[in-house]
Order: sequence, then C-alpha cells, then structure tokens
Amino acid sequence: MAEKASENVVYVGQKPSMAYVLGVMTQMSNGQNQIFIKARGRSISKAVDVAEIVRRKFAKDARISNIEIGTEEKALENGQKVNISTISISIGK
Amino acid sequence: MAEKASENVVYVGQKPSMAYVLGVMTQMSNGQNQIFIKARGRSISKAVDVAEIVRRKFAKDARISNIEIGTEEKALENGQKVNISTISISIGK
Repeated sequence: MAEKASENVVYVGQKPSMAYVLGVMTQMSNGQNQIFIKARGRSISKAVDVAEIVRRKFAKDARISNIEIGTEEKALENGQKVNISTISISIGK
Repeated sequence: MAEKASENVVYVGQKPSMAYVLGVMTQMSNGQNQIFIKARGRSISKAVDVAEIVRRKFAKDARISNIEIGTEEKALENGQKVNISTISISIGK
C-alpha cells in the first residue's frame, strides 16, 4: 500500500490489531470526530476487529456511522490484474 | 457454526467464495429480494468478496442496502471465552 497518510484515515495491514486501535484512539484524542478505518483483501477482517475493539473497549460513545465495501484492481508483478475487495468503516462521536 | 439454515441468509465459511456466490444467486432466483451474507472472524473478508462478486458479475441490478458489524462471544474448548467479530451484508434488488 502506498497511500498517502491522510489525517483521518487508518489503513489496516499486517500489524497486530492493537496498533491500529491505538492509531484510531490517537486521532480521536487529536480532535478528529470522524475516522475512516480502511483495509483491503484479507485485512478486512482485522479492520472489523479494530472498529469493534474501539467501539466496545476504548471509545464507548463512538458510533459506526457508515460502512462501505468496494473492489479495486491490483496489478501483479507478472502484469496480471486481480480484483481485491476493500472496506471503509466510518467511526465517530 | 450451528446456525439453522435460514431462508434468506448465506453463512460464509471455509468453502471457496464461488460456493457462496452460487448460494446467493440461487436464493435470488428463488424469489428472495433481500439476502443477508453473514460471516465471523477471518471469513469476514470472504463475505465481502462474495457480496462484491455477486454485485459486479452476476446480479448487476443488486444493491448493497446495509452492512452491520458486531461482536460475539465464543467459548473455547478449555472454557475460555474470546470475542469474535461478525458481519452481515444485506444485498437485494
């Protein structure tokens, strides 16, 4: 993933879930009212874990306001293209 | 998973995605206008794949009307309890 770090987006990847939970909580305490938890492919399950941990354990006044799913085309090294699913979970106060 | 097979629910688990895509399409052709694609834990990513494949390749008039995430408590064999994330994707015409 080569996304630019956006102020209110947390991209979920290979690290343990708690790393991303911390990322969300840091943004919330920096005054972000709306945070997007985004992931692709197999990390989608972890993105849901992150949203649920934030909502249930750390920011009990936070609500999940929207969830979107989609598909991106990804070019493999051999030139082939594959479709990869995406998720964006919007969480805020 | 020991859920009762519900008429308009497709539970996504260990099988290949296309098995569940077929399940959704079968229910649609049986006249179900609203189908819930449900999964837990690591199968959540596959549930998103299934919804996206249905919407993009097979039922192009279908819309994803709602996505809900949640947490269930699961008892392990040793008596410990762990939290497991869930997703329910509602897709229909």
